[in-house]
Formats: sequence, structure tokens, C-alpha cells
Amino acid sequence: MSAIDDANAAAIQRVLSASPTLVGVGRAGDVVPGMQDDLLLHAGPPIGWERMSGPMRGAVIGALLYERRARTEAEATGLAESGRIRFDPCHHHAAVGPMAGIVSASMPVYIVENRTAGNRAYSTLNEGYGKVLRYGAFDDDVLRRLGWIERVLAPALGRALELAGGVDMKTLIAQALHMGDEGHNRNRAGSALLARLLAPHLVRTGLPAEQASEVLRYFADNDLAVLNPVMAACKATMDAAHAIPGSTVVTAMARNGTDFGIRVSGLGDRWFVASAETPRGLYFAGYSAEDANPDLGDSTITETAGLGAFAMAAAPAIVTFVSGTARDALASTLEMYEITLAENAAFSIPALDFRGTPTGIDIRRVARTGILPRINTGIAHRKAGVGQIGAGLVRPPRGCFDQAVQAMAAALGR
Amino acid sequence: MSAIDDANAAAIQRVLSASPTLVGVGRAGDVVPGMQDDLLLHAGPPIGWERMSGPMRGAVIGALLYERRARTEAEATGLAESGRIRFDPCHHHAAVGPMAGIVSASMPVYIVENRTAGNRAYSTLNEGYGKVLRYGAFDDDVLRRLGWIERVLAPALGRALELAGGVDMKTLIAQALHMGDEGHNRNRAGSALLARLLAPHLVRTGLPAEQASEVLRYFADNDLAVLNPVMAACKATMDAAHAIPGSTVVTAMARNGTDFGIRVSGLGDRWFVASAETPRGLYFAGYSAEDANPDLGDSTITETAGLGAFAMAAAPAIVTFVSGTARDALASTLEMYEITLAENAAFSIPALDFRGTPTGIDIRRVARTGILPRINTGIAHRKAGVGQIGAGLVRPPRGCFDQAVQAMAAALGR
Repeated sequence: MSAIDDANAAAIQRVLSASPTLVGVGRAGDVVPGMQDDLLLHAGPPIGWERMSGPMRGAVIGALLYERRARTEAEATGLAESGRIRFDPCHHHAAVGPMAGIVSASMPVYIVENRTAGNRAYSTLNEGYGKVLRYGAFDDDVLRRLGWIERVLAPALGRALELAGGVDMKTLIAQALHMGDEGHNRNRAGSALLARLLAPHLVRTGLPAEQASEVLRYFADNDLAVLNPVMAACKATMDAAHAIPGSTVVTAMARNGTDFGIRVSGLGDRWFVASAETPRGLYFAGYSAEDANPDLGDSTITETAGLGAFAMAAAPAIVTFVSGTARDALASTLEMYEITLAENAAFSIPALDFRGTPTGIDIRRVARTGILPRINTGIAHRKAGVGQIGAGLVRPPRGCFDQAVQAMAAALGR
Repeated sequence: MSAIDDANAAAIQRVLSASPTLVGVGRAGDVVPGMQDDLLLHAGPPIGWERMSGPMRGAVIGALLYERRARTEAEATGLAESGRIRFDPCHHHAAVGPMAGIVSASMPVYIVENRTAGNRAYSTLNEGYGKVLRYGAFDDDVLRRLGWIERVLAPALGRALELAGGVDMKTLIAQALHMGDEGHNRNRAGSALLARLLAPHLVRTGLPAEQASEVLRYFADNDLAVLNPVMAACKATMDAAHAIPGSTVVTAMARNGTDFGIRVSGLGDRWFVASAETPRGLYFAGYSAEDANPDLGDSTITETAGLGAFAMAAAPAIVTFVSGTARDALASTLEMYEITLAENAAFSIPALDFRGTPTGIDIRRVARTGILPRINTGIAHRKAGVGQIGAGLVRPPRGCFDQAVQAMAAALGR
């Protein structure tokens, strides 16, 4: 056991010492490793078009329309079915995407650098609310907004980040946890802090006043603006802890809307996959659990890094969104200490007398206690084109962890 | 007793139904009722130069230098002693000022309108941290900053507020309470929300980019930016509940650094005054309780309106600043339910399962329970010119409440 403990100590040290910094914005095709014009990245473990859920198919269609590889939904569907488009998990390209998580070559992405380990991670720019690509919508409004993000928002943020000399995401997340965020589904504080930090630089980029106003309104109206850079910060953190032989620390949890997959530091690039569960939560007016798609998105990288449901005690106001009471929010964090190896002092929770967030899921602890990780999540409609219909709570399927434990036993020759 | 209960019900109704809205910025001499060139407003109950504490004297000197009524500290002191300058409480002019609370005619002020009752309240623009007038500093840096506030910040905010159509302070405060603020000494969330709200408008005012950047940096660097409009919002709220015959609700608590004074709705414009206590708390490096001035400032209008220490359960992170533990923060709010008449559903506290903040201090309940209101506060150095040296907790002297209860008994012919 000592070899595993040593490996885990090394992994945890890399997690706790990470210093993710938002350093810029680039075009996915230019900056994301291995990105190509005929490639679409998606959330979760590997999946092909034929097994993709409705919202992920919708987002694929939208991305092909956005890239002008197709002019109609039918053309896009035909192209996706044809085999001429390749699909790869974001996670295979140092990237993460919320919900469907589709990334195409022309899309702008945030660049987050872990200044401790030197690795980088990437995520698209958050689209805001309502009908959005990440929930599988692809109508003209969605495409127009993606065009504005590419044409106006991304270059403006890129220049502002340059003038700002980057944004220290670890400090920003730490502050946001003292302001009622948990970093996954409640990001009002972090988004306001990011807006406040970048605004003085943004107005010095030479952007026309009307466009500067549009960009600042994007931040004023979008409490999820910071989610995507937070996700990339978590990815840059957890990638640094990946591939340490013998380590039983989970370095990724991700869902493609059909399957849930996890990766473990000491088990290389294998995914341990089982059918995704459907979240339980609160639905927007007119929708119910029958409309819900199974669990979707790479945003569980936040829980993997000790945020989201793991930090829910910091964010009692989130229960109005995902269901439950303030006590449930406390219980969520407290339970996660049972299956994690460390407390992240950099991410402290005032209501728990500044105890650090539970960090570093150990597959051995999950197996021993029977406690599965908790996840806060948005809920997508199961049909392409509809969008978000609610938010709630979910856990990974147990099978992912059972397989990982067996694989680890095999790897250790037991 | 029924007449008192009816009067209190009316007072509470006016508090709970208030809709304070930040509508603009004006010059104190132009907009504050009764403001004149030879008049300085100050925090707390009435006081003359001869009894003023060090920090208040420092702020008076600074205001006279700022107004160019004097060219040196000695000249300013001579003028203040001469009787040619009149002093009046901010509270007598529908205004409130943090710490020394000095307002002179040329200073810009926020204008907050209670859209329910139609009354208005005023407060200066927050100066930020370090050496600032409100803590009694008056050197060239302080005066330069006041000049920038008058010349650049105030007109820019005024125009931005016009374009924004005002800012609903009640909604902003409610959001901030879900984000770890208590509205008095912790205002990071409210300040970030205000910045985020105004930024898209600010860049459309025609302000040169460099000045727009300065204004946005003021917000980025100043977690107290929203304190002054929050105070004016509380003043506009509590003034609407004032002067209801028979009501035992406290409508103002204020300190001038020498005396603590309260006013009661049913007891007209009388102040009930006793010597101010000295706060207990945490001191900045190099300072201790021996350096502390007694309790100072009108910012206790926040506690009077159910915020500050009354809402501390919403802001556990504040204990790193004012001392104590997260449990103390909960206890602060819970104790205040004992002496208040209502819970403000508009200002809910997630950690208390969204219970409303304790609102409307009843002098009868204070007398019956022996529990005095709790206050979070900054601590000023007792000498003019030094500034803030810490932050902590304090209560009003019991004498204020004893006198008020006696006066009420006399008024009711008992």
C-alpha cells in the first residue's frame, strides 16, 4: 500500500500546488493540441454520432452550421453520419466543455496555464443562457451569438487579458468561494469578479464604445461567464496530477450524455465507463423529469478538483436552483471528505470555519465507503434544439469506480 | 400597548415596503436639503469642534482644505475653532456618512430615492482604502483623491446611472447577502455587482478611455464602493419609518466618535445620547486597542435597517476581518431576532434556510431582554491624520436605550 500512498501524495501535491492562470484567448484550431478542421471535440468519454444523445447531436449540427460545413440541419446530419467528421473527447486535447462541450476549429477558447507544472488547458467562451449550443440548440440566434463571440468578445477579452497580464484563477476561485459560489452551477461572484478585474483593461484596448459596452453587458448579464475558465483551471490542475504510476486519484469525471466516464491518475488514458444517470432536481416551468437527458458535460472537472458539489457548503443559495436546503449543501461537502485524500487550504469554506474543500477523489475510498461523488449539474432536454430545462443533483454510476478498482488491482498484479 | 403595536406595525410596513433606488449623483450644496457653504455635516449626533475626537477633527480640517477655505492645517483649525463654520449631523439633512462622515458643499453625493415613500437620502462617494478623509486623514494624497472623485468619478457615475435608469438597491443588497456580504464591513459582492451593472453604461458616456479605465479601476480595487449607496438606501428606508407617533422602532443609530446617539420613530427629532464605546476587534500590524478611537460613523444605519451585524450570518468570511468564528457570525444574527419586530423577506439569509434579516429594533425589546444591538465597524486611530487601524465589533451604550424608554414613557404619560 505504501507505493500507492506515495503516488497519491505526489498527485495531491500537484493538485494543491497548481497555479492555474488565465493567460489569453486563441482560436481552437491554432492553440488546442491536435485540433483539426475535420475534428469536433465533445464532452465526456469517447462516443460516435450513432450513440450520441439528442443535445449532443444538436450541438454537433450547430457546430457544422457555424463552421459552414453544412447549410441546413439535414446537410449537417448527413455529414455527421458520413464518417467524414471525426469525434474526439475534449479531454484528449487538454480541453473541457460544459454540457455537449462541442469545440470546432474556428471557435475561440480560453487558454489557462498551470504556472507550476507548465501545462495548459482550454475551454470555449460561455454563451450565456437560453437557447445555446452547449444544450443542443442550433437556430439562427445561437449561430449569430457564436459569431459575435468569435468576432467581438474573443478578441476583446484576449487583448484585455494581455493588458491585465493574465488572471490568477486560483485567487479568483478562492474569493468566489467566500462569496457564495461553488464554481460549477453558481458562478455569480466569480463572474462579477472577473468582469470587475478585466473592465479597466477592456476599455484600453481601443475597442469602439458600443462594442466595449456589448462585452461589458455580456458579463453583466451572464452569471456563468467564469464557468468556462474555472473548468479550464480545474483541467489544468488535474492534468498535472495525471499519469502518476500507482496513484488511485481520479483525474477526470466526464459525461457525454450517454455514458459517464472517469480516468484515474495511475491508469493512464483509459476511461472507465458506464451508463450516465439522469439528474434529480428542479425543472423550469413546463418541463419534467421525463424530458431530461442523462447527465452531460465536462463540467464535472470542477467536482474532480474539489469544487462544485464538493464545495457546496460555500454556496447555500444554490439550493434554490438545484433543490434541497442549506443543510443539504453542508452535508454535500461534509460527505465528500469521506472519499477524498486532502483538504485544499487555498479553497476554504467560511461556514465550515475555513476548512479547505475536499480534494482528490480516491477510488479506494469510494470502494471502501460505498459513497459516490456528488455532482451539481444543469439538465438538458433530451431532444436536440430545446436547451436547458432545469438543474439538479446526480452521482456517477458505480460501475465506473468498480472497473477502475479492478483495473488497478490488475495493474498491481493482485 | 395596542396603540404602540399599531404604530410599530405601520413603521415596520414602511421599512419592509421601501424601494430604495440609486438615481443619480449631485453636488451636496445643490441637492442635500439645507446644505450651505459655511456648513459641514458630520456623522453621529450633534457635536461641536471642542468635543470632536481626533479623526473627526482631521476630517473637518481636510474638508476645509478641500473647499479652499483654508490653506494649511493651522488655518483650518483656526477657522473650525472660530465659530464661523457651523456643524450639523448628516442625519439632520437626510444624509449619512461613514466614519467621520464629513460632507461639505462641493462634495458629490449619491442620491437614493425611496420610490415607495418618495423621500430621498444622500451619501458621499467612497474614497477607498488607506489614508482617507473619513478616517481623519487630510494630506495631499487625500485631497488629490477627493479632487478626482469630484472631477472624474462623480460626473461619470452620474451619467452612467442616468443611462442605466437607476440601480435598484434593494435587489442589489438582496443578491449581495447571498454572496457573503453583510452590507456594512463586507461589501465585496455588492461592489462587484454595482461595477458590473454600471460598466456597460459607463463606456457609453463619452468618457475618454483613460478616465473610463480609472473609474473602472476604482471599482476593481474598492470592495467598499457600494457601502455609501447601501448606507443611503438604509437611510431612505428608515427615514420613511420615522416620526410615527407612538412607535418604539429605532430609526437611527449613529456615532460621532465621542457620543453614540439613537433616534426613535415616535420620539421625533430628539437624540438619546451616551458616551461611545471602543470596538473590540483585529488591528492592522503596528496598532493596538490603545490607539483606537471610540466608535465612529453613520454606517450603523445598516444595522438599524437589518444589515451589518444583524445580517452577519450571511457573511461568515467577515470574521477574518472583525474577529470571531463562523459560529459567532450565525450567533450575531440569531441574537438580533430577540430585539427586532420583523424579518425582512427581501433580505434572506441562505445559511438560515432563507430566513429574513432581523429588522426594526424595538426599544421595548432591548429594555426587556437586556440585549443591545450588535455592530460591525471599522476602527479609526484616535489621532487626526492616521486613518483606519483595524475592524471589530461593538454595541451601543445602554444609556441611549434607557433614556429613550423613559422618554417614551413620559410621552405616553406613564
